[in-house]
Amino acid sequence: MAEQIADQRDIEFVLYEQLDTMGILASKKFKDINKTMADMVVKEARTLAIKEILPTFTECDRQGVNFDRGCVTVPECFKRGLDLLRKGEWGALTADPEFGGQGLPHTIAQAALDYLIGANYTMMVYVILGHGAGKMIDYFGTPAQKALFLEKLYTLEWGGSMLLTEPSAGSDLGALTTTATKNDDGTYSITGNKIFITNGEQNLTDNIIHPVLARIEGAPAGTRGISIFIVPKIWVNEDGSFGESNDVVCTGVEEKMGLHGSPTCSLSLGSKGQCRGFLLGKENQGMQIMFHMMNEVRLEVGTQAATHASCAYLYALDYARTRCQGRSLETSRDSSAPQVPIIQHPDVRRMLTKMKAHVEGMRSLLYYTAFCIDKGHCADTQAEKDRYQGLTEILTPIVKAYCSERGFDVCVDAMQVFGGYGYTREYPMEQLVRDCKICSIYEGANGIQAMDFLGRKLTMAKGAFLTSLVEEIKKTGQRAMETEGLEMMGEKVTAAAELLETTCTKMTQGIRGPQFKSTFAFAHPLLEATGDVIMAWMLLWRANVAQPSLDDILNKSNANSLDEILANNKNAAFYHGKITTAEFFINTLLPATMGKLKAIAQGTNPAVTMHANSF
Amino acid sequence: MAEQIADQRDIEFVLYEQLDTMGILASKKFKDINKTMADMVVKEARTLAIKEILPTFTECDRQGVNFDRGCVTVPECFKRGLDLLRKGEWGALTADPEFGGQGLPHTIAQAALDYLIGANYTMMVYVILGHGAGKMIDYFGTPAQKALFLEKLYTLEWGGSMLLTEPSAGSDLGALTTTATKNDDGTYSITGNKIFITNGEQNLTDNIIHPVLARIEGAPAGTRGISIFIVPKIWVNEDGSFGESNDVVCTGVEEKMGLHGSPTCSLSLGSKGQCRGFLLGKENQGMQIMFHMMNEVRLEVGTQAATHASCAYLYALDYARTRCQGRSLETSRDSSAPQVPIIQHPDVRRMLTKMKAHVEGMRSLLYYTAFCIDKGHCADTQAEKDRYQGLTEILTPIVKAYCSERGFDVCVDAMQVFGGYGYTREYPMEQLVRDCKICSIYEGANGIQAMDFLGRKLTMAKGAFLTSLVEEIKKTGQRAMETEGLEMMGEKVTAAAELLETTCTKMTQGIRGPQFKSTFAFAHPLLEATGDVIMAWMLLWRANVAQPSLDDILNKSNANSLDEILANNKNAAFYHGKITTAEFFINTLLPATMGKLKAIAQGTNPAVTMHANSF
Repeated sequence: MAEQIADQRDIEFVLYEQLDTMGILASKKFKDINKTMADMVVKEARTLAIKEILPTFTECDRQGVNFDRGCVTVPECFKRGLDLLRKGEWGALTADPEFGGQGLPHTIAQAALDYLIGANYTMMVYVILGHGAGKMIDYFGTPAQKALFLEKLYTLEWGGSMLLTEPSAGSDLGALTTTATKNDDGTYSITGNKIFITNGEQNLTDNIIHPVLARIEGAPAGTRGISIFIVPKIWVNEDGSFGESNDVVCTGVEEKMGLHGSPTCSLSLGSKGQCRGFLLGKENQGMQIMFHMMNEVRLEVGTQAATHASCAYLYALDYARTRCQGRSLETSRDSSAPQVPIIQHPDVRRMLTKMKAHVEGMRSLLYYTAFCIDKGHCADTQAEKDRYQGLTEILTPIVKAYCSERGFDVCVDAMQVFGGYGYTREYPMEQLVRDCKICSIYEGANGIQAMDFLGRKLTMAKGAFLTSLVEEIKKTGQRAMETEGLEMMGEKVTAAAELLETTCTKMTQGIRGPQFKSTFAFAHPLLEATGDVIMAWMLLWRANVAQPSLDDILNKSNANSLDEILANNKNAAFYHGKITTAEFFINTLLPATMGKLKAIAQGTNPAVTMHANSF
Repeated sequence: MAEQIADQRDIEFVLYEQLDTMGILASKKFKDINKTMADMVVKEARTLAIKEILPTFTECDRQGVNFDRGCVTVPECFKRGLDLLRKGEWGALTADPEFGGQGLPHTIAQAALDYLIGANYTMMVYVILGHGAGKMIDYFGTPAQKALFLEKLYTLEWGGSMLLTEPSAGSDLGALTTTATKNDDGTYSITGNKIFITNGEQNLTDNIIHPVLARIEGAPAGTRGISIFIVPKIWVNEDGSFGESNDVVCTGVEEKMGLHGSPTCSLSLGSKGQCRGFLLGKENQGMQIMFHMMNEVRLEVGTQAATHASCAYLYALDYARTRCQGRSLETSRDSSAPQVPIIQHPDVRRMLTKMKAHVEGMRSLLYYTAFCIDKGHCADTQAEKDRYQGLTEILTPIVKAYCSERGFDVCVDAMQVFGGYGYTREYPMEQLVRDCKICSIYEGANGIQAMDFLGRKLTMAKGAFLTSLVEEIKKTGQRAMETEGLEMMGEKVTAAAELLETTCTKMTQGIRGPQFKSTFAFAHPLLEATGDVIMAWMLLWRANVAQPSLDDILNKSNANSLDEILANNKNAAFYHGKITTAEFFINTLLPATMGKLKAIAQGTNPAVTMHANSF
């Protein structure tokens, strides 16, 4: 069971049959990358993930992190893992080669991350945070700052973090109280306390580069007065040599439900008045710079949840194929009939098919979002670039929130397939459930994502992002309506896209009207329903691709029955599975979403009229 | 925050305003119980639960159980707790007073358990299993067996367990391999291995009475050949004195995701050929006797999940009222505006109202099921008894499966309200999530409950149970249609009941037809949808009761506005909350259920047509 992260065939399907990754590779921006190289990167990621990273998944949970007088010790197994990630140059797949990056398209990087994050997110978060800190410096740093930090971060020699949250400033970052005062030498003295800092302190890298949100004395209140600083754990001199230790003290680590291998630190900055940092970008530009990184991190959180789900599904599938329990329904009254693998039981099949639908739908959504990022960089016309950048904007909160919730549900369903065993530590299911749970909470709680989706993304560019999204869905619907066997699904998904569009439009009017609170109380259900419609779209898209390929196999086959072909031809079974999965989602799950959209469209939410004393 | 288990006012509401508990108390069967006594029991349960049991909840999770060479040590704090439960005679609330029971109606016992199970299920499972073993002996034991075991179990002097599961016989008990051979003295020698045995070994009671499922040599294969035996840990002589230790060896305890205070044991019986037991009831009657207890345990699992949810909701409510974060939506652009308690944010309100709807709906469902059990015993006519026994039958799988899933969801939503703090051990939310998860798995996995619901309960008595259920829902709908302000909700719930009925009828035809596997793949969605409709029913029932009481207060009030009344009159706020909660569920959640029912009714489930190679 140890080799289960992601279905290799499915990844190839998304990259080269569903999405036009070859088109990306053919673009000017990626002229140095060809398919052979791209495939090699994905293949190497797979090998490294399965052979080296995945074995650390359970081990790091059992070992946990240790905190002792300011020092944090992370699981021993991370050392070798991080070394291998360094040597393989996995630190910055999409970053500029000039500073140690690989210059890959996001679409290809997503496939590599599918394996690596799936193998052990807790370890990969070292890569993610180093890369994130680097990227901000890459985009907003001075040449001197880039020279000092960038390569060290991209090559994973130093670690990164992200110091945003404070005890009274979580979702509301505008309330933060960490202050910065300009020194004569141009650096800033920072004072404040930060909490929930992933990798805020660790014993894996020689230095840690902390991007820190703080308010410069006299700056405006709220988010408009926040600046961002680069605060190294060990000071870095102008020549790149180490100076003295900075005044950043780890005061504790959280005991958490999951992610036990990952230190979640409380940090005290400047308690001795000696914490120094460099301003990144301009004064009061902190939120804008931070969001540059945050959007990428949100896609990675979506990937975290989706890959937990992918692992969980594959484990459950493997278990369901081998665990015998109960008799087949046909022979259920015959007590001498043999036990059958539980995959034969309809309810187990329902769970597996539902998991498969979400795992594959989420994979397509994630890769498609990465594809949109690439197209936003390399499309031929500015109009096309704008379109894909808009799609990236509108999909980001869906990826983060929807994947985190449905990914968690998949892990929970997978545990159910294992029965009592799933609740024990004998199998990785319970850890997947525990680890996955954080995804809905961190990097912008899902309620915030829903507000972002409704309040910002649906209204930006006069609603153009939504228009683009609905157009794309309808294209897929139209193609299905023209494909024999998929017509009904095409109609249903088109109808869902239309209902989604009218509901979203009504909602964007609602938030400007007197009942705006009522409308905002539907923000999360709307995000969920949008995610459902996107799942239906992605699965139908897959079916659109699979149907002609399946037809082709069937036309060339001499077999007597479909069943015979499916039993003997792996590709036929694969393509048939895509169509069946789409049918499952669209015919058995989407109708509930249509009901939910109707409930949203009626517009009045009693949750906001409830008197405070009535709860 | 330590006092949060259940809303006392809500419990009183269900007992004496929603349900006719006074009618139960007035019946001949409960002539010795009056309201004052009943109220005192509930009040004492509340005090004991909050003061003594609840503090052990976190402690037992941290301490866990210890296994060393066959001995299991449970958390130290359980000793005092169990002593208090013994002294307070909480071991057998509904059992016969002749053997140490309290002779209470189930409706009242349910209210007491609401507090006690909510305070710490892990501790109460000692009571539940002792009571369960006792009840089987009560119903099926010989006078000699009753004399030996009953009072000891009901008074919690000895513990109980339930030895069903084996490594290859979980959901499929018919596959068990434990054997029993009759000895000359009438006892049986038992040989086999059992796993997942809650309280199979512990250091809290002088003896443990194990009910054991085993097959007598030569008995038929499958469930028809299973008998049940009473296997004491320490042999009990005919005069009640202790004999020698029985050959029951604990070989290990599971490491689990949650319920860390509860030992889940592997037991080896007769490894030295010396395990003896008494036959309970007749040969091959084991499953029938076991189900007698199992049905009660299923209601208790539903209660476990529902009380976890109740705790989680009240914690989240308390947190949302005191945690300030972000500005009110009206002033969101004014960075000088103060932070507000997060209960003011629409999405937090949506989560809280959804939690409240499920917590209160589940409470009403649980108490109503207990009420049906009571009415099944004390109704005036046999027809009425049959009706209520049928309702109990059809509601049992819903209580077990629906409450376990929605209860878990409530815990997960409550964690979300706490943000990052909810994921840490600083608050009890993560433990509630971990502990609650088991409910969907044990005592009959939810897939089994769904099969039971569709395959047995809907078809038994020619569908009469469903007819009764739908009639009861429609009665409530009718009353709402006749109540000013509730008419629309009455129409919606009535329509839902009608769609439920036609869907169920179609399904019961489906399982007899050629597409029966497809139909069974909808068993779980049908159970979920039925549970949703029942929630809507229970919440509308509550609104039906609340509306005239609220009207009464409003008519007598001199206040200028509804808001003024709700702010100053606790009862008005309480009743208004019931109506608003019903509106929330029926207007914003039930439409999705209607969509789901339509998907079920169309009848074809692609999960069963998926080729095994296509997953």
